[in-house]
Amino acid sequence: MNRKIDDYLPFILKSTNIARIEDGSVLIGDRRVYPFKKEFVSCRSIEEVAVVIETMVTQGGGPVRSAMVAMEYLADKVDRGEENRSRDVFIKAKERLQGTRPTNTSMARVLEDLISIICKDMDEGKALKPLVSAYIENFQKEYEQKSFAMADTGSGLINDGEGVLTMCFAETSFILSIALALEQGKKIKVYSPETRPYLQGARLTAPSLMEIGADVTLITDSMCAHVMSQGKVQKYMTAVDIVTSDGWVANKIGTFQNAVTANYHGIPYFPLAIDPDMTREGKESIIIEERNPEEVKMIRGIPTTRPDMKAYYPAFDIVPPHLISGIITPKGLISPYGLKALYNSASEKENK
Amino acid sequence: MNRKIDDYLPFILKSTNIARIEDGSVLIGDRRVYPFKKEFVSCRSIEEVAVVIETMVTQGGGPVRSAMVAMEYLADKVDRGEENRSRDVFIKAKERLQGTRPTNTSMARVLEDLISIICKDMDEGKALKPLVSAYIENFQKEYEQKSFAMADTGSGLINDGEGVLTMCFAETSFILSIALALEQGKKIKVYSPETRPYLQGARLTAPSLMEIGADVTLITDSMCAHVMSQGKVQKYMTAVDIVTSDGWVANKIGTFQNAVTANYHGIPYFPLAIDPDMTREGKESIIIEERNPEEVKMIRGIPTTRPDMKAYYPAFDIVPPHLISGIITPKGLISPYGLKALYNSASEKENK
Repeated sequence: MNRKIDDYLPFILKSTNIARIEDGSVLIGDRRVYPFKKEFVSCRSIEEVAVVIETMVTQGGGPVRSAMVAMEYLADKVDRGEENRSRDVFIKAKERLQGTRPTNTSMARVLEDLISIICKDMDEGKALKPLVSAYIENFQKEYEQKSFAMADTGSGLINDGEGVLTMCFAETSFILSIALALEQGKKIKVYSPETRPYLQGARLTAPSLMEIGADVTLITDSMCAHVMSQGKVQKYMTAVDIVTSDGWVANKIGTFQNAVTANYHGIPYFPLAIDPDMTREGKESIIIEERNPEEVKMIRGIPTTRPDMKAYYPAFDIVPPHLISGIITPKGLISPYGLKALYNSASEKENK
Repeated sequence: MNRKIDDYLPFILKSTNIARIEDGSVLIGDRRVYPFKKEFVSCRSIEEVAVVIETMVTQGGGPVRSAMVAMEYLADKVDRGEENRSRDVFIKAKERLQGTRPTNTSMARVLEDLISIICKDMDEGKALKPLVSAYIENFQKEYEQKSFAMADTGSGLINDGEGVLTMCFAETSFILSIALALEQGKKIKVYSPETRPYLQGARLTAPSLMEIGADVTLITDSMCAHVMSQGKVQKYMTAVDIVTSDGWVANKIGTFQNAVTANYHGIPYFPLAIDPDMTREGKESIIIEERNPEEVKMIRGIPTTRPDMKAYYPAFDIVPPHLISGIITPKGLISPYGLKALYNSASEKENK
């Protein structure tokens, strides 16, 4: 079975629409204007890519690919002699990108890996761009394999006739789970909370699900528990921005309260985690990004209150492992308490 | 102690800014444009007042006063001979107004009471406007007494240094509770969720609290449980649209999930109910209004998703009595399981 991921994914999740190099620029899919427009922001420096990530032109899983493509762009400049061929250039770029958003550590970890390879090959005098391109190609191949593995698990958890609640934009592994469930002939309904203040649910998740032919209903973030109480929801599934080795999950603000109310209603919660962070342990190891409170006071640029109002914008919240029914990983459905045993024994094997 | 309620209330809650007769029209404070503008919608018929209520120009406690003032306006027209002096005119008006919004039954019950008095006096040939004016004046006096009684209880429940979470716009009894707590010298913080889709929290509650000098922070509806988990909230207090005789509370959508997450965090929930509906019993007796789903797809007129997206807009949700720590009523803090005993024995006494 040779499934092609792009056959299942909506426009916004196809890898080349997340980030690509074209005409001497890094093009990054602009998630701020979707679904109203399909536009790309053009970047010509690491700094411009960093600002694009900070201002959430791309978000969720987008920064990982954007950062890798930015490194490919930089490697090309170095190969052409437009930038110094020095470790410092890459390390400075890596640190600028890693500093853009603190909660999700995937991009930071991938950049560490990529930089160590670049630095090694730099010493051997090789051209750097082909190296980074190959790294990205391999990363994408693994990403697709892992996404299919997760979606096979995810779609298997959803039964015919069930309703699924999500939160924010759970991206490839979730959208693919729904796509595979539909392919299996299951009639399912998805409830997508709009996800204030940035409206990822209204703008990204719901249109993505509609694009792949799913029966999706948009609700406000305040309606999740009510919809559960009406018996409309049987599974709660989200992405994660980080999972610690002991099963604490951080994801978009609102994920936690849905996990509490799902638990109250006896509805299982299955976060999807392609890449648990085994270097972090415990709730305290997670850095919750606080964003500009002005974003809470407006919606798509329109003010919702007095300009002098005080506001607060924690961008993520944390779900404790006891509210998690199982984490959907590329290795299958894992108890939040079982990550350490599984991942540590795997890395020990790899090290042997 | 002769406290004047208007000394404590913000602009939008002063009775004459809710609804009044002026220059031959019923003027109703426009809550849709507040706090950006202080405007009134001018109505010259019962139908226009009904549409104003349906379209949420006024909401929450606003429709009760608006409907009474509309009846005063109609009585004046009858006295002047501009409308037929018949029961049917008033009954038709009453039914039109009662049909505007189904969940909150306060206005419907007040109109029943008022109409029975009008019909009685009609037979005796009296002028009707002075009768309705006196009814409203008496209602307002009782409303103020009850609001102060509730706010004395409410402010007493908030300790110095505590944080209070609310939801939607809990109006007079809540704002007055905060005002009295401040007068008592307590340093308190209030967290106001914006309350999508209509933004009562962002537009009405937070500005009202700011106007009375409270330390208020605006959050999105998705942040409530996270703020609780940070130890910022010690009390959860909301208005109610209806309380049944056996302690089920309906209020703005989102109230229920906050009650579940408050319970999870050991935070007590105190709804404020000026007027429990002793004619209703059980969850099933509450009619949850479903409003136009298009409202979920926009914010202040700006679209948040594709125009062809399916959406769902239940305007209220229901909190079961076991999640309620006590109901703040004009008779004090009552167990949700104790309403029947208290109110039925009181009405038996009144009937004797």
